[in-house]
Amino acid sequence: MINNVLKSYNEKIERAVDLYLPNNESNYKILTEAMRYSLLLGGKRIRPALLLEFYKISGGKNDGALPFALAIELIHTYSLIHDDLPCMDNDDMRRGKPSNHKVFGEDIALLAGDGLLTLAFEVASKTKNISPERVVRAIGELSHFAGMNGMVGGQVIDLQSEGKKVDIKVIEELNLLKTGGLLRAAAKVGTILAGGDEKLIYAADRYGEATGLAFQIVDDILDITADSNILGKPVGSDEKNGKSTFVSHYGIERCRQIVDSLTESAINSLNEFDGDTTFLKELTLYLARREH
Amino acid sequence: MINNVLKSYNEKIERAVDLYLPNNESNYKILTEAMRYSLLLGGKRIRPALLLEFYKISGGKNDGALPFALAIELIHTYSLIHDDLPCMDNDDMRRGKPSNHKVFGEDIALLAGDGLLTLAFEVASKTKNISPERVVRAIGELSHFAGMNGMVGGQVIDLQSEGKKVDIKVIEELNLLKTGGLLRAAAKVGTILAGGDEKLIYAADRYGEATGLAFQIVDDILDITADSNILGKPVGSDEKNGKSTFVSHYGIERCRQIVDSLTESAINSLNEFDGDTTFLKELTLYLARREH
Repeated sequence: MINNVLKSYNEKIERAVDLYLPNNESNYKILTEAMRYSLLLGGKRIRPALLLEFYKISGGKNDGALPFALAIELIHTYSLIHDDLPCMDNDDMRRGKPSNHKVFGEDIALLAGDGLLTLAFEVASKTKNISPERVVRAIGELSHFAGMNGMVGGQVIDLQSEGKKVDIKVIEELNLLKTGGLLRAAAKVGTILAGGDEKLIYAADRYGEATGLAFQIVDDILDITADSNILGKPVGSDEKNGKSTFVSHYGIERCRQIVDSLTESAINSLNEFDGDTTFLKELTLYLARREH
Repeated sequence: MINNVLKSYNEKIERAVDLYLPNNESNYKILTEAMRYSLLLGGKRIRPALLLEFYKISGGKNDGALPFALAIELIHTYSLIHDDLPCMDNDDMRRGKPSNHKVFGEDIALLAGDGLLTLAFEVASKTKNISPERVVRAIGELSHFAGMNGMVGGQVIDLQSEGKKVDIKVIEELNLLKTGGLLRAAAKVGTILAGGDEKLIYAADRYGEATGLAFQIVDDILDITADSNILGKPVGSDEKNGKSTFVSHYGIERCRQIVDSLTESAINSLNEFDGDTTFLKELTLYLARREH
């Protein structure tokens, strides 16, 4: 079931990409190509799926939240392109394909990231049939969790922590901001757009926080335990890079327990909602147990 | 007069920087420092001044548009940081000081740019006392002109044109997008936030387009004629880089005539507005006649 539903969300997102970012014959068409290249490399579309599901379980109608679902995927994609640049992680591969700058050059990759981040807010501003009050609040949350006090701040802590022994509190903050930022934004924005009350928005926030932290810990576990063919990237790179993680601090077994407890707490947050949370609960378990 | 008014706008912007981007003791405070460094390097604050003036001449009240005035300066500043990176123009100096990546490193500079661009939309979403309808539309315009079909697209044309003989139509498009993008956004957003009707929004757009093109042509003229001490960067760098510009195509004298005619047309657009356009007219002339 999980895979079929995710597949249908993926199709929605790819149709939205064609709608908001069509190929064109402009004098800067290489930019569009570069933006589409990374967007269409695949990926599980977890963030749009969460956003659209929270919209649904909070009483949202139809595809009203679709522009924001695309927006959050645009932001996620820009962050991967900039992450892969030589001045950052210097990764040549992404999802088993050459990374953006290997195909288009560093300059175009940088601008493709800038273009994706900017397009996210343009697309979000085109939301129809949802009150502008909610749209403005949702833009505020999205930009907050994507920016300096969210994902970008987390990236900076990550850079500053490289090759150092880092306090577990700092690692937790890093994970909550870097990975958790957009997951929190997804859950909150979906709920806000549907008109959920403050209690629901708070529950969505708790869900995103727990799921985000669990997601990163699972990533760290997989970095050690996974088969590199399944993972799509070399195994053990955190250890090689001298990276402090939950796993290097607590060990794998304790980390699995932490993931279970975060997953339970995320699922409990879902009980606040009146809508059908079956899929979201399955998705939450799936994310905790994934093998890549 | 021009300088006093610009100085007061500069003070408004610097106070807004302290309000929305205060120094802090977070684990990512280096990011805040890097963002503030480039924001506070100076500059004429032309874009915020235009935005706030169009807000005023369209009947806007008080400092309602200030968050957007800061937002457009955040976007302008991010674009300068990313422009200066080694994979782009590789400039070590900006406004007579070391460029962001020379002080903070390429990784932090990249993220400072990302953080500034994202913060722009967070700050814009915090606009008070203006209807959310107008705020959403203004966010749409700002992101449109900053993004792939505006400034970022213009950057890409610029990169693609390097060292080539380029058709004058392409140079015009480059200038309209790269330099003109944010000037058009400034004029339109100010008018939209004040509740100007479609006729005024159109006039603001025409103003921004003419001023933006004139601004870039003046830049190209100064690149050849200015004293490098006054300009703050080496003179003749366009020619050295084999760059096609209006000046390389038409020559300096014809370019001065084009600037005069664009300036006249920009000033004519201002006659549509009921508010006092004295300062804006002076500013438009000042931009056409500036020596740096």
